[in-house]
Amino acid sequence: MAARYDFASDNVVGAMPEVMAALVEANAGAVGGYGADPVSARAADLVRELVDADAEVRFTASGTAANAFALSVLAGAHEAVLCHEHSHVATDEAGAPGFFSAGAGLILLPGAAGRIDPNRLGDLLAQPDVSYRQSPAALSLTNATEFGAVYAEPELEGLARIAKGRGVKLHLDGARLSNAVAAGFDIKSLKRLGVDIAVLGGTKAGATPSEALVFFDKSLARRLDARLKHAGQLVSKARFLSAPWIGMLETGAWVARAAHANAMAKRLAGNMPFPLAHPVEANGVFVQMDDAALERLRRAGWFVYRFLDGSARFMCSWATTPEAVDEIGAALKAIA
Amino acid sequence: MAARYDFASDNVVGAMPEVMAALVEANAGAVGGYGADPVSARAADLVRELVDADAEVRFTASGTAANAFALSVLAGAHEAVLCHEHSHVATDEAGAPGFFSAGAGLILLPGAAGRIDPNRLGDLLAQPDVSYRQSPAALSLTNATEFGAVYAEPELEGLARIAKGRGVKLHLDGARLSNAVAAGFDIKSLKRLGVDIAVLGGTKAGATPSEALVFFDKSLARRLDARLKHAGQLVSKARFLSAPWIGMLETGAWVARAAHANAMAKRLAGNMPFPLAHPVEANGVFVQMDDAALERLRRAGWFVYRFLDGSARFMCSWATTPEAVDEIGAALKAIA
Amino acid sequence: MAARYDFASDNVVGAMPEVMAALVEANAGAVGGYGADPVSARAADLVRELVDADAEVRFTASGTAANAFALSVLAGAHEAVLCHEHSHVATDEAGAPGFFSAGAGLILLPGAAGRIDPNRLGDLLAQPDVSYRQSPAALSLTNATEFGAVYAEPELEGLARIAKGRGVKLHLDGARLSNAVAAGFDIKSLKRLGVDIAVLGGTKAGATPSEALVFFDKSLARRLDARLKHAGQLVSKARFLSAPWIGMLETGAWVARAAHANAMAKRLAGNMPFPLAHPVEANGVFVQMDDAALERLRRAGWFVYRFLDGSARFMCSWATTPEAVDEIGAALKAIA
Amino acid sequence: MAARYDFASDNVVGAMPEVMAALVEANAGAVGGYGADPVSARAADLVRELVDADAEVRFTASGTAANAFALSVLAGAHEAVLCHEHSHVATDEAGAPGFFSAGAGLILLPGAAGRIDPNRLGDLLAQPDVSYRQSPAALSLTNATEFGAVYAEPELEGLARIAKGRGVKLHLDGARLSNAVAAGFDIKSLKRLGVDIAVLGGTKAGATPSEALVFFDKSLARRLDARLKHAGQLVSKARFLSAPWIGMLETGAWVARAAHANAMAKRLAGNMPFPLAHPVEANGVFVQMDDAALERLRRAGWFVYRFLDGSARFMCSWATTPEAVDEIGAALKAIA
Repeated sequence: MAARYDFASDNVVGAMPEVMAALVEANAGAVGGYGADPVSARAADLVRELVDADAEVRFTASGTAANAFALSVLAGAHEAVLCHEHSHVATDEAGAPGFFSAGAGLILLPGAAGRIDPNRLGDLLAQPDVSYRQSPAALSLTNATEFGAVYAEPELEGLARIAKGRGVKLHLDGARLSNAVAAGFDIKSLKRLGVDIAVLGGTKAGATPSEALVFFDKSLARRLDARLKHAGQLVSKARFLSAPWIGMLETGAWVARAAHANAMAKRLAGNMPFPLAHPVEANGVFVQMDDAALERLRRAGWFVYRFLDGSARFMCSWATTPEAVDEIGAALKAIA
Repeated sequence: MAARYDFASDNVVGAMPEVMAALVEANAGAVGGYGADPVSARAADLVRELVDADAEVRFTASGTAANAFALSVLAGAHEAVLCHEHSHVATDEAGAPGFFSAGAGLILLPGAAGRIDPNRLGDLLAQPDVSYRQSPAALSLTNATEFGAVYAEPELEGLARIAKGRGVKLHLDGARLSNAVAAGFDIKSLKRLGVDIAVLGGTKAGATPSEALVFFDKSLARRLDARLKHAGQLVSKARFLSAPWIGMLETGAWVARAAHANAMAKRLAGNMPFPLAHPVEANGVFVQMDDAALERLRRAGWFVYRFLDGSARFMCSWATTPEAVDEIGAALKAIA
Repeated sequence: MAARYDFASDNVVGAMPEVMAALVEANAGAVGGYGADPVSARAADLVRELVDADAEVRFTASGTAANAFALSVLAGAHEAVLCHEHSHVATDEAGAPGFFSAGAGLILLPGAAGRIDPNRLGDLLAQPDVSYRQSPAALSLTNATEFGAVYAEPELEGLARIAKGRGVKLHLDGARLSNAVAAGFDIKSLKRLGVDIAVLGGTKAGATPSEALVFFDKSLARRLDARLKHAGQLVSKARFLSAPWIGMLETGAWVARAAHANAMAKRLAGNMPFPLAHPVEANGVFVQMDDAALERLRRAGWFVYRFLDGSARFMCSWATTPEAVDEIGAALKAIA
Repeated sequence: MAARYDFASDNVVGAMPEVMAALVEANAGAVGGYGADPVSARAADLVRELVDADAEVRFTASGTAANAFALSVLAGAHEAVLCHEHSHVATDEAGAPGFFSAGAGLILLPGAAGRIDPNRLGDLLAQPDVSYRQSPAALSLTNATEFGAVYAEPELEGLARIAKGRGVKLHLDGARLSNAVAAGFDIKSLKRLGVDIAVLGGTKAGATPSEALVFFDKSLARRLDARLKHAGQLVSKARFLSAPWIGMLETGAWVARAAHANAMAKRLAGNMPFPLAHPVEANGVFVQMDDAALERLRRAGWFVYRFLDGSARFMCSWATTPEAVDEIGAALKAIA
């Protein structure tokens, strides 16, 4: 019996019906390539409306690529990006930020539940530039965090102020931004916070592979299509990367289905016999489970990952059903 | 009135029904990410069967990325890739081969209708290595060529022999390989010719964005997934890049619909009042038209590109109808 | 008998006495590393005085590195550098510009005797940006040119005006700038012309390995030392790269000895039985010699290179003696 | 009064007399460029004799470049290099390894006094490859270490065995290898240990800027000169980078003067009123000094660095005199 992957990640499931319908609808007709098509124009408009900003918007198939590309715009090869020590860009992207930027460095910062500790950020930015180290040029923030926490706006504002005060640019990894928004984060605050480039997650939210690259600072977007093409991130039939956003945004499903995922995580947390490692604020549940327990769970037919901080991670998605939550809840109780 | 793009390229149309059906079918269930799913396994098997070789197979969303990535595996940054002066890698990819390889060079070779002249290849490979030049490490071939020609197998064999005799590796840009196959090219010959890495075109053949990267030389595929991830070319919901191949290969549509596209090009050539610039062997028709004629055609409602060699290009696709061919044929006669 | 290399290049000879004396003098004492030493400060002052500009000045061991580094500052990876088709950056640097810039392209322009044709430059810059091509961000000029020609100031002004009018930045490859200056070029015009970064040649002028990187646009020099360090171009004992410039500039030898080299080229041209391929304006003599003649010359004991345009190249240097000129002149007459 | 830099580093001093004499001697005559000269040939022979191996040998002006270049040969962009958390490649090279390799990662390992802990190395290499992380391809060792320790041969053998057993290649950063050799390390063991590429330090040993790149595995040296040229690391007047090695190796000064530097460090340690932070095995003395004491020392006229582990570092060199040691010793006692 193959293990069930339902809770292994929020990218193990397919695409939501709204996305599939939008793909089918976008499929008709002959249109311009490389983003010069009405579907891509409409999707970009919807994203601009969502963030309430006159931003440049593009779509990529990979979140790793979107993040790494954005960071390469914000930091030179001889500079560095500040990020949480457990951020996706630092731990899960096989060094892609270094590839896209020809060697920009990452400077890792600690902080509880994936949030960056503002004191450590301040200390680090107080250090003088020296020729033998890569100085910070950008700060990468993740919301919701890798540990299912959601930054409150004042927290982000504090970090942003420290960074902007030192001329450091802002990147937002929003792979799970829909979950943060569903948990109360105001997406319109991104502009106010001074975010320069944000990546809005489509894939984990329930799309076929698609992430939205949002350049709030349009001066950074000069020759953007050539830059994407050069980096292998511009597809000819661009409508298939943009259509999912029409499906998710016109219907409100991007947030509504994230709210469902968050609710499923809360339901699972309520059933959970193992101690929580982090507060459950979005769509992930992180618990303290030893290897033996994890192994028993796998033998009971469920695969989940041991995560970066040693906790076991259970992810819910748009497709998670209450029944599945209750099933794994029962399995967990049986092996606890 | 917006111009019609039907003949502007073979990437202006949507995906064929077989592909859309395969996407819908692949959408069900929770599966492993990053290619560890049954859909991707099945698609890779079908590609191996197609080329009759025990190759490593992966899928990317962009043909530019697939080509540039492949070339970066075959040539070091301090080396060069030999290619036709009008090849896609040289003229239409915004320097992506240089990006993926950290600066590998391109050495451009001439040849009629996009085919590389074997004498010029031989001359070039007879030159000694010197420290101030990037020496050739790979030869990139395109079939069908950018000008709608199809290499006969002995031609390719001749080029391959020259290259292999000097230790030069082989890349095939097969963005329109389906059209070449439909025109009689034996795809099983790739292995025999010693192609190291081939890119099989899905997008122009009628898929949603997807190209198949086929590593005939599996020794080059060490840590391939990490290499793809590092280069921003590994997506989590990989099934959506692989499913189109199930749709195209299980049904035979990849070749059958390319045969249709080729037939439409022949039909258009038969109607064409302007002199042909190249023989019509695949799905493109290239003709000599001056600027005034091209402008008249645009005013008549049809957009086509002036191409690299100065000819005007008309591309047919899986979706081209006889009616559309006859419509543009009539328009051409009216303005000739 | 080994062939004599005296006329093979201007980098086959050692360093002038003024340079060796400056190295010996700079050797004393314990000083700060990485350029924070009084020798480097004095050398930079002398360069600023020479060019009459408040520029940032650094020293590198390699001219290829200095050029490629400068270009990487002026053009993004997704952009291109315009240069002469026979420029050093295009033909003799093993693709280093592509390496330093992570894949920036080169766009080659024609022109007599190594000078760029302003009409072709204008035509090229009139083309619109497209996503599938690397658009020009910088223009690289070489003075004296690779063919021993010297741009008159109005010629450079014309090229600079075309470039600057399109937002294209200016790089000067001055590997043989001393020869151009000795031939009448006003080095103080660089600032006026709007050159953003110039490389002043030390090595070919008669130094141990050293080139001066001169950032006229200081806004481009942010975190310059870290950028050089990152690119492997910052040495700890920096005084040994800067001291040669004190030796060459305090004494006036940089220009005076270039004038000698130019005079030796004129003397050789006067003795030359083969037709000149280019006017002799600096320290090189280019002639039309067939392979048989070149082979006879080699057998007579003299090695010279066949150059990019098919001519045979004879380079004079600070160390070329009238006797050597007359010796090779006699040999040439004997084999003509 | 400017502070004295005598003990700030071993790169603050000039070149030893043997090196200056060799430079003067090498200066005569016209020779081939880019390493094709008798001085470079002789220097390479002397290095091969020193290490007792038929290696490929080149010379670069920068140790950072030599290390980063070597690592780029040993690890792909999508792979990683294992190194000590306080190694020079990790902390003092402004990310140059990432630049030369287009983004290879560094994996940091702990260990006392700059030596890598073999248990941690073993644990790390026992982890399976995964697509989202850069897997180790090379191990970088430093001898003498950044903290003035010298690996005993069995220690290196242990680390090398673990690495080689997992197919991991070996790099030696030998910026202070002469000091290790003077302390008893057998340089001929490098071949036996399976080191693939070593960098032998010239600069800190007492040369003008020059490091020797030694490719024990000659199969890695294919097209090496073009690779160096491409990376901006091949100079035309190569004799000025190789001559120092004739001066240092023909006379034995490379080791003899390192022995002097080591003896000076021992003398300083004997005078030292602050507690040692690491055993004094080569030419560095590391002590525990708080900020107030360091400030008093600076006010007394001596500049030294606070180092990576928080200790204060005093470096001795070929040029350190017993008098200077006693002077700073007295100053230290006065402020202790």
